[in-house]
Amino acid sequence: MLEKTPETTVNDTAHPFDRATQVTAVGGRWRGTASEDYFAFVGPFGGATAATMLRAIMVQPECAGDPLSVTVNLCAPVARGTFDLTVRLIKATRSTQHWMVELLQDDGVAAFMTAVFAVRRPSWSHQPATMPEAPPFDEAKPLPDSGIAAWVRQYQFRFVEGAPGYGNTPHDVPASAYSRMWLSDTTPRRIDFLSLLSMSDTFFARIFHVRGTIVPIGTVSMTTVFHADAADLAADDTTMVLGAADANIFHKIFSDQTGELWSPSGRLLATTSQVVYFKA
Amino acid sequence: MLEKTPETTVNDTAHPFDRATQVTAVGGRWRGTASEDYFAFVGPFGGATAATMLRAIMVQPECAGDPLSVTVNLCAPVARGTFDLTVRLIKATRSTQHWMVELLQDDGVAAFMTAVFAVRRPSWSHQPATMPEAPPFDEAKPLPDSGIAAWVRQYQFRFVEGAPGYGNTPHDVPASAYSRMWLSDTTPRRIDFLSLLSMSDTFFARIFHVRGTIVPIGTVSMTTVFHADAADLAADDTTMVLGAADANIFHKIFSDQTGELWSPSGRLLATTSQVVYFKA
Repeated sequence: MLEKTPETTVNDTAHPFDRATQVTAVGGRWRGTASEDYFAFVGPFGGATAATMLRAIMVQPECAGDPLSVTVNLCAPVARGTFDLTVRLIKATRSTQHWMVELLQDDGVAAFMTAVFAVRRPSWSHQPATMPEAPPFDEAKPLPDSGIAAWVRQYQFRFVEGAPGYGNTPHDVPASAYSRMWLSDTTPRRIDFLSLLSMSDTFFARIFHVRGTIVPIGTVSMTTVFHADAADLAADDTTMVLGAADANIFHKIFSDQTGELWSPSGRLLATTSQVVYFKA
Repeated sequence: MLEKTPETTVNDTAHPFDRATQVTAVGGRWRGTASEDYFAFVGPFGGATAATMLRAIMVQPECAGDPLSVTVNLCAPVARGTFDLTVRLIKATRSTQHWMVELLQDDGVAAFMTAVFAVRRPSWSHQPATMPEAPPFDEAKPLPDSGIAAWVRQYQFRFVEGAPGYGNTPHDVPASAYSRMWLSDTTPRRIDFLSLLSMSDTFFARIFHVRGTIVPIGTVSMTTVFHADAADLAADDTTMVLGAADANIFHKIFSDQTGELWSPSGRLLATTSQVVYFKA
């Protein structure tokens, strides 16, 4: 679990991800910044934005349990500079909490999140899904720094299948939408809910893989489900995940994307799906 | 598209699904009823509740485009009787709308939905996913009326793989979580967004399949993504879908469930995922 000490300013020696996703209390709201370190094409990387919103929930004094399911809707590009976050506890039961966060810029909602938190208990346990095969992290080749966007440099991508090799013209025949990769923060950081949520959005758009070229895209809505609680993450104590992603369909300017994040121990940490706008 | 005439009372000859999911304007809110026809164990079937909430968006005069992605969070059991729905347009852009609906009973939020609507346009189109094999609808054997819950009688289930056969004691070895089935309303009704959303929740809990026995369960959060627009659904003009469902993990009282809904023509109409509480 994160320490719940929102008043403490994150100092300059903090991990870049913690600096990028920090929130500061300002008159009943939280203030965050669209980090230049995690910038994408026309706004900050959605994963970092989502993590900042999730952090704003986790620093609430009444927040209980661990994130279970999080949906973030990206309504409009987040502009450079600061944004405000309003946090509302919609409903609490004995063992679950339902939260909503709105990200405001210039008094308009640019993004919002709903999140279920739950206190998980021991139960019968069964994992039918099996971890995709992969060589150890160190044996997979790192993706060279492409320099395309700042946020990409914040992660080490080590592709096992479907490494990107984008050209200027689309493939004649669509290639596979599937890829998998080892992923870690460039400066290793222990995996927690914030980084898992951010990593849910690190899969390069499936249409880039399928078409073999980069086209304008934007995530519209992303849902991530966590399959581990804080104790499970502490037990895994890892800085890397194996990520696999795929897509089912590209149709009338939208596609889906599904993803899995695995710990090196073979535990499925999170599954994620998103709807992506594309221009092609 | 639904006709946007909320004032018109649904008459007694309307389809049971339209009766169950109707909404009536009451002082700036919408009122719905937890239909006895679609009741489950401790509350109304979540699919019908979700469809009622989606209808409350679609009847808004300013609603534009078709549903693209819908997340519904079920916070607390919905009780018998009526409930109120508040509808809010969080953000509209040129081609998308982000909506939120809260379901209120006794002044508490029992469920809420966020939904993205979009005006879809022609684009490059590609469907890497392939429809699972299945005999024609008429050749698949209907599930006998189990009488377990009222809502089950509102659908025809024709299993192709993983037909339920639940006993009183759990399996020694977990069985497959995967199943697929033809599905239609018992009284055939042309597939639209409302019925697709409801059908997203018709998959029997994966833990019933895996354990071979019925245990207490409850959907916590469900996200459905539509891959067809109203014109696509009109072109398909079908009353049935092929549904396939699976699960990745059961751990610490929660499991996931993933699902696909296919038209008989081979078009992927919707994908869905949900988080399910279980007691086992």
